[in-house]
Amino acid sequence: MQQQISVITLGVADIARSRRFYGEGFGWEPVFDNEEVIFYQMNGLMLGTWLKDKLAADMRREGAGPGPYSLAHNVASADDVAPLIARLADPGGKILREADAPPHGGFRGYVADPDGHGWEIAFNPAWTIDAGGHVKFGV
Amino acid sequence: MQQQISVITLGVADIARSRRFYGEGFGWEPVFDNEEVIFYQMNGLMLGTWLKDKLAADMRREGAGPGPYSLAHNVASADDVAPLIARLADPGGKILREADAPPHGGFRGYVADPDGHGWEIAFNPAWTIDAGGHVKFGV
Repeated sequence: MQQQISVITLGVADIARSRRFYGEGFGWEPVFDNEEVIFYQMNGLMLGTWLKDKLAADMRREGAGPGPYSLAHNVASADDVAPLIARLADPGGKILREADAPPHGGFRGYVADPDGHGWEIAFNPAWTIDAGGHVKFGV
Repeated sequence: MQQQISVITLGVADIARSRRFYGEGFGWEPVFDNEEVIFYQMNGLMLGTWLKDKLAADMRREGAGPGPYSLAHNVASADDVAPLIARLADPGGKILREADAPPHGGFRGYVADPDGHGWEIAFNPAWTIDAGGHVKFGV
């Protein structure tokens, strides 16, 4: 079977607030949006932000959810990590962890979006990212 | 900025149980694994499964988390949806919603992995998936 993820859908409380975070923080442009859902074309998959009640109803799931998970956006150098974390705080992000060096190498910090979804902002010298944003294990 | 997601990391309670679900259910092969984390090379990004206490400590986050979110794996036809959902139930998945047709078209159902992370299994005729698994908005 294809090792393929087609969408990550984040439940959000307020579409406009979420759009501001992803638009002004990351600078990403939607490929589709209406009053309840926005899709962003990513590197070979879609990121969706959907009103959380609609998502919970669609997936027949209510309640607190399964606990920790994170999304990551990788940058080209260690020096790019802290400025992006600072930039994401401005349109409603909450810094969870300021950037520092993890034991396995590289450099990273964490920011929660306005709905609490956690993003790792990382430089990882052991992984390759091509010009189209495609991420590959190894160099 | 690149519209790029590099990793989705799911917190898991038991690495072996999680490996069985992704290996026997989806049939995916790890590109890296040790006693606390496994990485799967996906379509231009990585899927990580990491012991949940380690992930929570790394991201400086504790507690229930932000509520609903889902991952999706898309298949090539509506007829492929129900068999994959059934197959995922066998190695420890929990069916949240049996496959049916959503109002926006296509066909889909939801399965939670053994740690409760929700996967939508979907056929979406409005999106393109190439031979490498890369997903694009539109046809």
